[in-house]
Amino acid sequence: MSDQAQSAILLISCPDQKGLISSTTRFIWDRGGNIVNLEQHVDVQEDVFLMRLEWDVKGFNMGWSEFEKQFGGMAERFGMRWELRFSYPKPKLGIFVSKYSHCLFDILSRHQSGELPVDIPMVISNHPDLADVVSKFGIPYHHIPVNKSIKPESEAKQLQLLQEAEVDFLVLARYMQILSPGFTEQYQNRIINIHHSFLPAFPGAKPYHSAHSRGVKIIGATSHYVTADLDAGPIIEQDIVRVSHSDSVKDFVRKGRDLEKIVLARAIWYHVQNKILVYKNKTVIFK
Amino acid sequence: MSDQAQSAILLISCPDQKGLISSTTRFIWDRGGNIVNLEQHVDVQEDVFLMRLEWDVKGFNMGWSEFEKQFGGMAERFGMRWELRFSYPKPKLGIFVSKYSHCLFDILSRHQSGELPVDIPMVISNHPDLADVVSKFGIPYHHIPVNKSIKPESEAKQLQLLQEAEVDFLVLARYMQILSPGFTEQYQNRIINIHHSFLPAFPGAKPYHSAHSRGVKIIGATSHYVTADLDAGPIIEQDIVRVSHSDSVKDFVRKGRDLEKIVLARAIWYHVQNKILVYKNKTVIFK
Amino acid sequence: MSDQAQSAILLISCPDQKGLISSTTRFIWDRGGNIVNLEQHVDVQEDVFLMRLEWDVKGFNMGWSEFEKQFGGMAERFGMRWELRFSYPKPKLGIFVSKYSHCLFDILSRHQSGELPVDIPMVISNHPDLADVVSKFGIPYHHIPVNKSIKPESEAKQLQLLQEAEVDFLVLARYMQILSPGFTEQYQNRIINIHHSFLPAFPGAKPYHSAHSRGVKIIGATSHYVTADLDAGPIIEQDIVRVSHSDSVKDFVRKGRDLEKIVLARAIWYHVQNKILVYKNKTVIFK
Amino acid sequence: MSDQAQSAILLISCPDQKGLISSTTRFIWDRGGNIVNLEQHVDVQEDVFLMRLEWDVKGFNMGWSEFEKQFGGMAERFGMRWELRFSYPKPKLGIFVSKYSHCLFDILSRHQSGELPVDIPMVISNHPDLADVVSKFGIPYHHIPVNKSIKPESEAKQLQLLQEAEVDFLVLARYMQILSPGFTEQYQNRIINIHHSFLPAFPGAKPYHSAHSRGVKIIGATSHYVTADLDAGPIIEQDIVRVSHSDSVKDFVRKGRDLEKIVLARAIWYHVQNKILVYKNKTVIFK
Repeated sequence: MSDQAQSAILLISCPDQKGLISSTTRFIWDRGGNIVNLEQHVDVQEDVFLMRLEWDVKGFNMGWSEFEKQFGGMAERFGMRWELRFSYPKPKLGIFVSKYSHCLFDILSRHQSGELPVDIPMVISNHPDLADVVSKFGIPYHHIPVNKSIKPESEAKQLQLLQEAEVDFLVLARYMQILSPGFTEQYQNRIINIHHSFLPAFPGAKPYHSAHSRGVKIIGATSHYVTADLDAGPIIEQDIVRVSHSDSVKDFVRKGRDLEKIVLARAIWYHVQNKILVYKNKTVIFK
Repeated sequence: MSDQAQSAILLISCPDQKGLISSTTRFIWDRGGNIVNLEQHVDVQEDVFLMRLEWDVKGFNMGWSEFEKQFGGMAERFGMRWELRFSYPKPKLGIFVSKYSHCLFDILSRHQSGELPVDIPMVISNHPDLADVVSKFGIPYHHIPVNKSIKPESEAKQLQLLQEAEVDFLVLARYMQILSPGFTEQYQNRIINIHHSFLPAFPGAKPYHSAHSRGVKIIGATSHYVTADLDAGPIIEQDIVRVSHSDSVKDFVRKGRDLEKIVLARAIWYHVQNKILVYKNKTVIFK
Repeated sequence: MSDQAQSAILLISCPDQKGLISSTTRFIWDRGGNIVNLEQHVDVQEDVFLMRLEWDVKGFNMGWSEFEKQFGGMAERFGMRWELRFSYPKPKLGIFVSKYSHCLFDILSRHQSGELPVDIPMVISNHPDLADVVSKFGIPYHHIPVNKSIKPESEAKQLQLLQEAEVDFLVLARYMQILSPGFTEQYQNRIINIHHSFLPAFPGAKPYHSAHSRGVKIIGATSHYVTADLDAGPIIEQDIVRVSHSDSVKDFVRKGRDLEKIVLARAIWYHVQNKILVYKNKTVIFK
Repeated sequence: MSDQAQSAILLISCPDQKGLISSTTRFIWDRGGNIVNLEQHVDVQEDVFLMRLEWDVKGFNMGWSEFEKQFGGMAERFGMRWELRFSYPKPKLGIFVSKYSHCLFDILSRHQSGELPVDIPMVISNHPDLADVVSKFGIPYHHIPVNKSIKPESEAKQLQLLQEAEVDFLVLARYMQILSPGFTEQYQNRIINIHHSFLPAFPGAKPYHSAHSRGVKIIGATSHYVTADLDAGPIIEQDIVRVSHSDSVKDFVRKGRDLEKIVLARAIWYHVQNKILVYKNKTVIFK
């Protein structure tokens, strides 16, 4: 962990081949960059090389546009997809909610205590119910109703607000509307959803009811990036809790709330720390 | 736990109504039975009352045929489905295997160490491979090949062996054949299968491959009673283990093996202890 | 779960002996009480019988003072310790905090969303820091400084506030002061603490630092009733989370916060549901 | 995972400083080594750099004695402690047991099924009881009685057997004797023990009894390298299972057996895969 220091992060994926690690580390080192963290992985089934490289920007003797040009050349030779990120400044998070407050409260209290290093310029909801909660925290709350007939206009309003505030990524904190493909493609791998089941079991509506009806002994929650396919995007984190015959659907819901907020919070944490690399609809979570 | 003592066990389910607990406990008590364990549960969604009642047979002043007559009368008034079981003698377990040895070994070693209070009159397999393993433990091994064209004859042979040995229940310890409905209905709620996924996710063949392809962060195993519907019978026990991007399918299989044997062993334990009550394709596991 | 209905609850412990279940259930039934929940357990090591009995007060044809007289007589014959509790009205919870906000926030958000059926007449703290948080929720905040020289006066003030508000039970939500025996004995089995380790490992101060230094692979949290012995009271709930060499002490603290709030919330839930019976410095948690 | 290929592995620890990753990877690369796996970690509290580097020996153009000389020179400049290991041939494992069979059975069945890539030249026991089990697997069983008065002679016999067979590492599979410091120092970081508690809670004898008496809600097991200090060596792996008031000590023992064998098997796996680096009485487990 190098929370304090300012660092640059490279996320790389490419066909596996010889010399990837040494070429990349040498490139950084030769330009004065001290590597503080390197994690790589080879997906042998897919023959894909994946790496996260983090170095201290202090002493790095190259501007970022020059870096993009020079590193880009090498990346092209290796067939790399790559992204350059930075540990600073704080990213801007936009939160979407409907009526359930537990995930929202959890994020806001992590933010307020300083645990979660983001700025939160707004909360957007299709209902007015949680305006009071949000106002307690001094964050603007935008009530934008959504229904089938007005969905395009609603999404246009949402996008305008997000873009004006230069929001970096979105969290759907139990937001009960489906975003259109036109919306999601503008925030590819930047919209995190929490689904209240152990995906791929019980996608869609009312997973706790389905789980109860099936008589499972464990329930789960799944945080994932949102894609055009409902509940089918790259999974970031999952966790579970035991249930028994003595738990009603209501108990599933109660126990599940705690799962949901923890599993969502972990996904947000990984995202903010630039620890997630997406490839082939899966995630690598670097540690 | 009253492992040492000889006890009788009633497993009861019926529509919820007043007076069920007091009537039943009074019935046992009035006949000299000391109740050593009572657990009950009401499924409020289904309005079903479920109970397990265990009492010491020492001092119980009524024969079992007379009991069936008298208790049967009361049970009829309440609309009860009920079963009478005993903590003795040891039940007889028939094991079905194919080529994987880990669950088989695990059961046999529990049996040999005295941990698992059953008799094992036979192991049946559609392959000859594990004959050596089983012979180490001095248990008869029956190799009965199975394929589509001879399945009826194969099952007839299996059933004959099981019936001659008066086998009480079966365990499919990674048995890679599907039993016909005609077979399974003869051992209703008495065939325990282990499926190597967190059901209802990934039913059927190659669940570890499917899980890896989907990019899940947790894999599971499920033990359940076998019904005519593949992997859809009442779930007895489930457990999970974390995986990450760094685990290949091969790692999933390796980690999964440990899950499978533990989750199967727990199901066998509950079954042998008469702790399981099945209703509406779900199980109540009394503690 | 009979959340809606008004019910009475008996928590009983006594030497194990014959006839306990039938005598007790008959007693309730004969007075018009419909038993909606019964769970019992025998601690065979200690030869102690433990039971929780819940019945619908509707139709129960006996006043509570008469009940205490009549049931008290029977209880005496069996040598029972017993308590009568009710599912209504909501109990009053007093919260103690110092400077950490995560457990406090979590409790207040559960309260606000209606998940936690208690009244919270006050938060007491030895620091002023969290006054703002609490005021967001419209709950009185009492700043009562504590140090060695003024501890008796501080505790006297605390007790006066609690007694005036008729607080039923206390939660120490990371309260960093040790309560005196004179204080704790007034709320026996009614003060819930959260300790940030897997007790009995790492009692006392700085458990995350000790855990990190020892190189454990799992960290835990423990909620327990407070007794005169520090971190040695009856354990209510524990849970754990995996850590690895890549987690710093700071990461332990971050991961631990989530554990702490969940483990504390579960303990509060069990307490409020009258599910906890304490005997021999242990708890029975009825389900 | 590169199970098939033959690879060399460097395990390195040293004071953190600039240039460690690039110097090391360049060293391997310049000599024709293709790095297939690199994982590194910095312990910021201790300011220690730790790395595991694995490369394909095919194409590596340097003999191992020459490697030791050249790499040794560089290592000295950085103040590195380092070890060179190989993914081949299979290491030789010596197993120590007393009377409990569950861990022994589990290891032998993993070995027999081909899951565990080791040779097992012998099992040594202070009791004759498990000779039959071991003989089933065709492995030599040495019964060497141990008691206070003959301990030095017993250990001398054990060491002679181990050395003659060129055993690489030892597993104490519930071996109920304490090895002398003179013994353990000959197999530093090469003796794996399984302790049936969540260390550091409940070290020493009868941990399940102590855990039951304390009323914990979770029990654990810990595998660790053996040092001269009882149950205080570097922890390799831990896991837990939930218990409740309804579990007797006997149930703790039964549930714990499954934990013990899984937690021990994982430690053996990491050791055999050369994934463990020990420093400051802690382990880094590379993934």
